[in-house]
Amino acid sequence: MNFIERLTEATHKNRSLVCIGLDPDPQLMPRNRGVFEFNRAIIEATADLVCAYKVNFAFYEALADEGFDALKHTIRYVPDGIPVIADAKRGDIGNTARAYAKAIFDNLSCDAATVSPYLGFDSIEPFINYRDKGVFVLCRTSNTGALDFQSLRCEGAEPGCCSLFELVARKASQWNRYGNIGLVVGATYPAEMKLIREAHPDMPLLIPGIGAQGGDLTLAVRYGVDARGERVVINSSRQIIYASAEDDFAEAARQAASSLREQINSCLP
Amino acid sequence: MNFIERLTEATHKNRSLVCIGLDPDPQLMPRNRGVFEFNRAIIEATADLVCAYKVNFAFYEALADEGFDALKHTIRYVPDGIPVIADAKRGDIGNTARAYAKAIFDNLSCDAATVSPYLGFDSIEPFINYRDKGVFVLCRTSNTGALDFQSLRCEGAEPGCCSLFELVARKASQWNRYGNIGLVVGATYPAEMKLIREAHPDMPLLIPGIGAQGGDLTLAVRYGVDARGERVVINSSRQIIYASAEDDFAEAARQAASSLREQINSCLP
Repeated sequence: MNFIERLTEATHKNRSLVCIGLDPDPQLMPRNRGVFEFNRAIIEATADLVCAYKVNFAFYEALADEGFDALKHTIRYVPDGIPVIADAKRGDIGNTARAYAKAIFDNLSCDAATVSPYLGFDSIEPFINYRDKGVFVLCRTSNTGALDFQSLRCEGAEPGCCSLFELVARKASQWNRYGNIGLVVGATYPAEMKLIREAHPDMPLLIPGIGAQGGDLTLAVRYGVDARGERVVINSSRQIIYASAEDDFAEAARQAASSLREQINSCLP
Repeated sequence: MNFIERLTEATHKNRSLVCIGLDPDPQLMPRNRGVFEFNRAIIEATADLVCAYKVNFAFYEALADEGFDALKHTIRYVPDGIPVIADAKRGDIGNTARAYAKAIFDNLSCDAATVSPYLGFDSIEPFINYRDKGVFVLCRTSNTGALDFQSLRCEGAEPGCCSLFELVARKASQWNRYGNIGLVVGATYPAEMKLIREAHPDMPLLIPGIGAQGGDLTLAVRYGVDARGERVVINSSRQIIYASAEDDFAEAARQAASSLREQINSCLP
């Protein structure tokens, strides 16, 4: 099974478009819990409620050795059948991109990775060459800085003129020879999400930006899903994993994840 | 001293604009050498010939635990007075970018980092807030994929229309309130380097792309340096560290680095 098939199977099995972002932050975690211990409790409490987990490498790298160990153990601990997305936003020239892809897919056994488009095709090719893995290309991100470059109107090689993020989506679609490319589109820009989904009806969308970042969940679901009400991965990190900073954090995370799943499912067509 | 002062001091002391890229690749390294042992020998043989060392994180991440250990030890082993550039090309939203900056500047004690501009200002701000550290923003990279997006003509908020990479340089210059931002400009695109240097006479340029990638060294020096013949960091990795795959690799690296230094210095005005 390739990544999209595994994602779809998990979506069906758990009736869920929820992805939980496992972003450990010692300032927000319950006291006296190790990072892996924290993640393990969250995973045990939520594995029947999600279509994927996402690990943002920055939060693990910031914790040095404990972080690297926790990252490895966390990825291994996720049950078979639930894909793990490596949110690493890597982007470098060909031979270097190959090394990053090896680290993420071979060494850590992640099922998908996020990549940055700024360096163009040869920076993404080594990732998509892992045909059974998923590759989410940053398209329209959820932050305010997205306006600095992603919204610029560009004269492409293509006829007509469109925004940089639209051109990124178009190129990603052209590069999608193995059918394993998706796009990262923030919930904070629903109009742009609508444009992207209309232009690319089949590509999976990884959607950050609900919860702490203030994106509109209803619009994200309405504009994000494909014709079958699928192919979106709606990520929530802080809203779920830090629902409580006390000993009941795992149970609180379960309630938050369950509530988000129901909210999303109630918006489906 | 801030990063640019440290870089300038190393440039003067060693009469060198050479940066050696420590990119360990077990397939190219002499047999039976550990990664740190290999790097240590290269550093010992070349520390009086360079203005900086650059560690590309991908090659360490690809080597899993041995790689992470070697990365830490290598950075620590570089003598005081020679800056270490973390070539990690990170780029993520604000709170995540803070975690990456912490990992690179606080935990690993690197002197500078490369960052990707696609996510805009809030993805770069946490790095530049370390005022004594350097931040090299990817502008015009050395690979063929650079043509996919970086060369597009964009209608910016600024009057007139220019290429995306020119706009990235212009924005980086506007964001440069602490004077610690530089640009990554590949030697493979000399005309573009000339444009960037003319528009930004004071910004340090990190120049990859000579050697294995085929960039023109003479033009890189001529177009890259500032009015005083400084503020460029010309990186060479494979051409130096893999000059020999035998036991004489460190001595061969010294000869290659020395030769590159003289070639560069002979092109200076």
